[in-house]
Amino acid sequence: MAAMHERPFDLLNKAVGQQVLIRLKNGTDMRGKVQSFDVHMNIVLENCEELEETGSVRTKLGTILLRGGNILFISPA
Amino acid sequence: MAAMHERPFDLLNKAVGQQVLIRLKNGTDMRGKVQSFDVHMNIVLENCEELEETGSVRTKLGTILLRGGNILFISPA
Amino acid sequence: MAAMHERPFDLLNKAVGQQVLIRLKNGTDMRGKVQSFDVHMNIVLENCEELEETGSVRTKLGTILLRGGNILFISPA
Amino acid sequence: MAAMHERPFDLLNKAVGQQVLIRLKNGTDMRGKVQSFDVHMNIVLENCEELEETGSVRTKLGTILLRGGNILFISPA
Amino acid sequence: MAAMHERPFDLLNKAVGQQVLIRLKNGTDMRGKVQSFDVHMNIVLENCEELEETGSVRTKLGTILLRGGNILFISPA
Amino acid sequence: MAAMHERPFDLLNKAVGQQVLIRLKNGTDMRGKVQSFDVHMNIVLENCEELEETGSVRTKLGTILLRGGNILFISPA
Amino acid sequence: MAAMHERPFDLLNKAVGQQVLIRLKNGTDMRGKVQSFDVHMNIVLENCEELEETGSVRTKLGTILLRGGNILFISPA
Repeated sequence: MAAMHERPFDLLNKAVGQQVLIRLKNGTDMRGKVQSFDVHMNIVLENCEELEETGSVRTKLGTILLRGGNILFISPA
Repeated sequence: MAAMHERPFDLLNKAVGQQVLIRLKNGTDMRGKVQSFDVHMNIVLENCEELEETGSVRTKLGTILLRGGNILFISPA
Repeated sequence: MAAMHERPFDLLNKAVGQQVLIRLKNGTDMRGKVQSFDVHMNIVLENCEELEETGSVRTKLGTILLRGGNILFISPA
Repeated sequence: MAAMHERPFDLLNKAVGQQVLIRLKNGTDMRGKVQSFDVHMNIVLENCEELEETGSVRTKLGTILLRGGNILFISPA
Repeated sequence: MAAMHERPFDLLNKAVGQQVLIRLKNGTDMRGKVQSFDVHMNIVLENCEELEETGSVRTKLGTILLRGGNILFISPA
Repeated sequence: MAAMHERPFDLLNKAVGQQVLIRLKNGTDMRGKVQSFDVHMNIVLENCEELEETGSVRTKLGTILLRGGNILFISPA
Repeated sequence: MAAMHERPFDLLNKAVGQQVLIRLKNGTDMRGKVQSFDVHMNIVLENCEELEETGSVRTKLGTILLRGGNILFISPA
């Protein structure tokens, strides 16, 4: 068995100040820079963009506070 | 790793007395001035307007108490 | 930052004895006089009416106890 | 501000031994006499009838234990 | 106000060893003999049958452990 | 009233090392041997097979950790 | 009754550093190497790929933090 030196929230912690892609449960993809997060995975994203399925920008949303319960996954961009 | 000086609810705290756009889980966009909020993200919005997809006003709702569980994201307008 | 002197439930507290409009998660609008509420936003409404989308009355329901979890927003009428 | 002398569960307490109409989240209407309830709004209804949209009886269910989480609202009949 | 001498789970307690009809949130009706239950309304049913809408037996399931969260109502058969 | 000597999780406890059929909330049937479970009804199934509605095997999944929240019922096979 | 020497999370613990297949509640299959997990089954997957129903790769997602609540099952690949 491999030792586990990290925990999932470490990924979020390292992502502060970095760009991430977030896929929501409703299928929408958002891209933005993580400013802060909390234990519920509520996240403040700066320069957040809602993406088309093709990956191109549909809407520029600016800064948003995203409720963690809507998130499917988060990926460092 | 960047230091995190803020927490997501700080965005809401700064938004008191300011206009925000709120997207609901059901896809509806609401715009109004934040009067108060609590830890469940229940929010009282003044002069709240329900928006068309085009961004124009569909209905003027006045003051509303919005249950936090319905929120997808909140964005300072 | 603006100071927050109120909390969302203050709106409900002031609404006791007053008429409110409640939009449910399923899209239905209800109108009635708030008799009481609790921390789960369970609300007793007197003379409650279920409304058509046009705002006209579909059904007179009398007094009801509405489970808070079904509420999208509450607005003083 | 009006004083609130009652709490929502007082309505249920007064309804014990009385007939109520219960609308479920799935849109079904049930009618029956409240025998008992608990803090989750689980309710035992005697002589419970599932109603058609017209209000006529679709099925006689007898005594049922209804899980509170399925309830939209309860109304003294 | 009528006195409430019983609580909803008393109905389940009396049903141990007896046949019940259980309607699930997904609309399915199950019939079986209650062997045991817990505070989450998880229930073990013996000789459990899944019913057609007509009330005839669709499938004999034998003994099952049903998760309480799927239950709409339980009725002594 | 019949005495209740068992609790629902006793069925799971007896099923360790045995084959069970599990119906999921999404309607899928899985069959496999219970290796372990926890209080959330998370279950590890060995030699797990996803079944067609006819009961024939659609996919062999091997060992899986199934999240309890997805379960409708569990039946000793 | 067979003795239960393991608990479901032991499967996840052994999977650290190994490839797993994860089926989501929405039907999507993901494949990747487990880097870490927590008690909510939030999982960090490295070299994560979203799969077609045929099992071929639809999208390479790189490293992702998957929220546990979206998971149907996890299988060592």
